[in-house]
Amino acid sequence: MSKKLIGIDLGGTTTKMAFLDENGEVLDKWRILTDISDEGSHIMPNVIASIRKHIEDAGRTPDDFIGIGMGTPGAVDRNNGSVSEAFNLNWRTSQPIRQEIQDELGLPFAVDNDANVAALGEYWKGAGSAEEDVVFVTLGTGVGGGVIANGKLLHGVNGGAGEVGHIAVQPDGYQCTCGKRGCLETYASATGVVRLAADMAQSFHGTSRLAELEQTDEKITSKLVFYLADNGDILANQVVDRVCFYLGLALSSIGNTLNPASIIIGGGVSSAGNTLLQPTTKYFQDNAFPSIRNSTKLRLAELGNDAGVIGAASMALQFR
Amino acid sequence: MSKKLIGIDLGGTTTKMAFLDENGEVLDKWRILTDISDEGSHIMPNVIASIRKHIEDAGRTPDDFIGIGMGTPGAVDRNNGSVSEAFNLNWRTSQPIRQEIQDELGLPFAVDNDANVAALGEYWKGAGSAEEDVVFVTLGTGVGGGVIANGKLLHGVNGGAGEVGHIAVQPDGYQCTCGKRGCLETYASATGVVRLAADMAQSFHGTSRLAELEQTDEKITSKLVFYLADNGDILANQVVDRVCFYLGLALSSIGNTLNPASIIIGGGVSSAGNTLLQPTTKYFQDNAFPSIRNSTKLRLAELGNDAGVIGAASMALQFR
Repeated sequence: MSKKLIGIDLGGTTTKMAFLDENGEVLDKWRILTDISDEGSHIMPNVIASIRKHIEDAGRTPDDFIGIGMGTPGAVDRNNGSVSEAFNLNWRTSQPIRQEIQDELGLPFAVDNDANVAALGEYWKGAGSAEEDVVFVTLGTGVGGGVIANGKLLHGVNGGAGEVGHIAVQPDGYQCTCGKRGCLETYASATGVVRLAADMAQSFHGTSRLAELEQTDEKITSKLVFYLADNGDILANQVVDRVCFYLGLALSSIGNTLNPASIIIGGGVSSAGNTLLQPTTKYFQDNAFPSIRNSTKLRLAELGNDAGVIGAASMALQFR
Repeated sequence: MSKKLIGIDLGGTTTKMAFLDENGEVLDKWRILTDISDEGSHIMPNVIASIRKHIEDAGRTPDDFIGIGMGTPGAVDRNNGSVSEAFNLNWRTSQPIRQEIQDELGLPFAVDNDANVAALGEYWKGAGSAEEDVVFVTLGTGVGGGVIANGKLLHGVNGGAGEVGHIAVQPDGYQCTCGKRGCLETYASATGVVRLAADMAQSFHGTSRLAELEQTDEKITSKLVFYLADNGDILANQVVDRVCFYLGLALSSIGNTLNPASIIIGGGVSSAGNTLLQPTTKYFQDNAFPSIRNSTKLRLAELGNDAGVIGAASMALQFR
């Protein structure tokens, strides 16, 4: 029996885990709640216990596995196998997670940040399959990304490669949590869409369900904005158009720099599908150099929530 | 005696050539005029004759060389070793230049476009030495570039990687020769600076030598604008500030995507030195993500006109 891979996708609410074969097929997957109490000190023991139990339940031993890969929020030190500044895990100080995994499970371990790991997943088994140059952009609460060039994930000199959510699309635009203004994230994240909708409703004169809802206590979500746009709401369509303009503009800067085979759009906002993809592609093409306009394809992510565990597991292939 | 490298930097006016050792030291360099008459049919024979003569004059034979690398304008097919659409060489149809070189000189030959080759030169022996991730931007008549990641030049799926001159910095801005609007090239190339100066002079009210010169038949150059800015001219300083704003903004998009160790600025406009570099760095930092702001350094190119032959020669190292 050929050896298997283990992938872990650590999140602030749930932690997803999976066993995969060397071809990237998911053999078993499960999730546990992430217990971030007591400064996140239960997180790694819980993960380790859960993996140990699943190995036993499957009638296997650690020797049946090649290694473990993990994606995590926060700042990752890949050389030391540690994570710091993972505030939504309550990890303020550096956590020696590779040491903990190796001590307890005796398997080699690789770690990277969650957006990079999702990029690896889509590259390996999703929308980017078999393409050497792929950029992944995830539109969630924030906007993150990962860049794969010549078949390798790029990290940059200080781990900042793939911070495409902070490309400036509107000088002196909205204030971003990063301290700058006008970052893509302030317009194209789920929270950005909601903020833009609230702003644009202020100056909207006409008939719109979205404009009406903005006057009530109704909680407006990015999903609702795209739903209303799909159903012909004028304001919602104006908001979506603005979001897609900024997204297409930022992706054209990436395209004009790298000319990747694909730019893959994932994360919660991407569930809007073609309502997001089609206008974004138009604005991308308006701003992309002629030889890039049609050769770099914008695609929707294909793996959904599995991108993290699949990409994480792919990092363990290096231990074969 | 260890074998040597040959580098060729083909240009519309002159062609530069050099012999280098394997460490990238230039042993001999010379240039010839590029004769683009008769549909550019004399270009390669002249280059071949010149190299043959220099090999003989040096008391050497082709066997003393590892191979030849060349940078050229136009669209390069690296697999076939051919060049097309090199309009300033009068090469409209595809030119089998590798075949010509190999038939005549019997040496292995590699070719890439001139901006990529200059990037390799600065990476190998110039401002980017020993850094794995470097982006090179050249501000000349146009704006070109090259991207080196994980120590390798990126080409992208259709050869468009490094087209950073066409990053959109001003939606609906100046018309670019590429057909789009608001490309970096329309503001930060030598011709862009001149155009911006002419435009800004129209609405300038105040005392300025540049504004006065714009009223005469005097030919305004990018060099003159930077010279006047250095000498306190108000309008010239406003023009330079705008150029640096757009350049810093475009470079921040590159930084936020790749977090390279260096972004190296070369080409004629870069001879303005710190008058260009300092404000550009400010605008870059305003728009770069915090972890990138100080880790990605903006630097001036160091090799000047030698970047091309040095980078070209570096491509021949693969034939060792």
